[in-house]
Amino acid sequence: MLFDTIVRQAQQVTILDQTALPLIWRSLTLTTVEDMAHAIRSMQVRGAPLIGASAAYGIALAMQSDASDTSLQSALATLAATRPTAVNLNWALARMQRVLTPLADDTRRQTAWAEADRIRTEDIAANHAIGQHGLSTLKTLATELQVSPARPLQCMTHCNAGALATCGWGTALAPVYAACQSNLPVHVWVSETRPRNQGYLTAAELAVNHVSHTLIADNAAGLLMQQGRADIVITGADRIAVNGDTANKVGTYLKALAAHAAGIPFYIAAPTSTIDIACPDGMAIPIEERNGEELRLACGSAPDGRLLYTRCIALEEPVCNPAFDITPASLISGIITEKGVFAPHALAKLLR
Amino acid sequence: MLFDTIVRQAQQVTILDQTALPLIWRSLTLTTVEDMAHAIRSMQVRGAPLIGASAAYGIALAMQSDASDTSLQSALATLAATRPTAVNLNWALARMQRVLTPLADDTRRQTAWAEADRIRTEDIAANHAIGQHGLSTLKTLATELQVSPARPLQCMTHCNAGALATCGWGTALAPVYAACQSNLPVHVWVSETRPRNQGYLTAAELAVNHVSHTLIADNAAGLLMQQGRADIVITGADRIAVNGDTANKVGTYLKALAAHAAGIPFYIAAPTSTIDIACPDGMAIPIEERNGEELRLACGSAPDGRLLYTRCIALEEPVCNPAFDITPASLISGIITEKGVFAPHALAKLLR
Repeated sequence: MLFDTIVRQAQQVTILDQTALPLIWRSLTLTTVEDMAHAIRSMQVRGAPLIGASAAYGIALAMQSDASDTSLQSALATLAATRPTAVNLNWALARMQRVLTPLADDTRRQTAWAEADRIRTEDIAANHAIGQHGLSTLKTLATELQVSPARPLQCMTHCNAGALATCGWGTALAPVYAACQSNLPVHVWVSETRPRNQGYLTAAELAVNHVSHTLIADNAAGLLMQQGRADIVITGADRIAVNGDTANKVGTYLKALAAHAAGIPFYIAAPTSTIDIACPDGMAIPIEERNGEELRLACGSAPDGRLLYTRCIALEEPVCNPAFDITPASLISGIITEKGVFAPHALAKLLR
Repeated sequence: MLFDTIVRQAQQVTILDQTALPLIWRSLTLTTVEDMAHAIRSMQVRGAPLIGASAAYGIALAMQSDASDTSLQSALATLAATRPTAVNLNWALARMQRVLTPLADDTRRQTAWAEADRIRTEDIAANHAIGQHGLSTLKTLATELQVSPARPLQCMTHCNAGALATCGWGTALAPVYAACQSNLPVHVWVSETRPRNQGYLTAAELAVNHVSHTLIADNAAGLLMQQGRADIVITGADRIAVNGDTANKVGTYLKALAAHAAGIPFYIAAPTSTIDIACPDGMAIPIEERNGEELRLACGSAPDGRLLYTRCIALEEPVCNPAFDITPASLISGIITEKGVFAPHALAKLLR
């Protein structure tokens, strides 16, 4: 089952509000660029590819009310300032700017909607291609490991790089869905992904699609790999440097280290729009620091509000909350893109 | 400030209920061995050294009501079954058994209380000695790094191995407290420690004792080390094998991997009662699997019950919740005990 993560309806954009998931599945209708900036900033839409498409629709919303140069510049600046790490945001904005700048005001409106639609459609296609390329990798591994229904391929992921993070079937989860469709037995280890718990999104979308999975604390990933209970790790990416260093949700690097120590392949799955040709290596990638409230206010209470055990931190406790980390290219077995699977050091060649 | 984690009052035992911390500081009075078994199982008392002392007091409570051989055997079995990983539990029970078995019923009662008191007193002394030996390690590092008030020594820890995990000043935090007492500038990175968030206990006890610290998500540890923002990692231990492999709260291994990758020293601090001479290596250490509810029910709500963002997992989601992992000796720079600091491979010698 695909989700309407972002859908255009005439001159409005409807998003699935991901801050309420998986408890509440509700749509929000956005009518202004400010609505969209808020949606990206507050993570009502999240996931690098979905952020890209959302930014493009944000520009279309801005053009709808005022298609002037000033309005375009202002919308580009507003959206660019929402989140710093995912390069798909800049990529989509640069593309909208390139397409719209030469146009007269009266044609801009329609072109903006058409270009945003195109970005969305291309993302769906890229997801599909990533799924197929990733499936080849999974199949090769499955043959080596003599995978069977009684001994499924054990994939570990981090955060949510599935259908909910994109316009289609996802990046890291696309090969998993492709495996299910081709009857390759697969089981997914889903990391909680503190502090925002996007792993719960992954668990929810896998449950809806009847994919076998198990939720774990982020801390448990190392033990499971040590015990030989994971065969491969696949995560998404928010920005890939030219040398293959990759920024992704904080905690990805720890999984890459554990995979390396256990001799388990570690793959990144992302569209080529996630590669930042202006970025030589991971050191140059800005790391978003988010509000400490995300950590402070996670206590142990049930959905009905019943307090199970209290582990709340005082509001005055100092908190550091980086949202991403950098996995060095040396820990990455391959990068699964819509154009094929590449060794990290081969990316530069791909971009020429 | 020390906490009354476990205190004997005549023929009763009073514990600080750690499931309510840090929001609520409340004591519980325990009068039976079943009370104590429940307290250990439910983590009202937790932390390997404190579990050891608690088990000893559990035997004393059992002897208080019935000092027969049958009662002793039954109490030993009940307490031994509470938690499988922390060897201090077995160590304390074996010691109580050794001391009490030869005695007649009428002297057992008093001796049980005296021996439990002795275990508690020895733990306080061991904590102090660990603090002093660890302080030497911190001072050497501080000199190398030219630590100053403007550039404090950056210590990272995991879980809670502080005063709340022991009868005294803690194990991993003892050197930190010793540093503060000797005016060595120190700052502590405190990991949340999902799923039970014992990092909040660490933050709370450091706050009470005015030690500079910052709370982070477990996932952020790798990035901070990569960025050179940690100088040393010190954690406690639940069981140390003879070859130096160490079981500690799940997630410790990931921090050890990240420390190794960043060239940062990684120390274990634990009393020698944590060393299991019957255990050749980490593979032989049983890993406790705890109730999945600990993971399922952690949603993002404020202490007042206001729901901030919902990331609750459906009750039917499958969950895997190991409570510990194994850090191989090769990743451990040294083990700080009450008898001094030892290389992991030197433990066998210490035990002879």
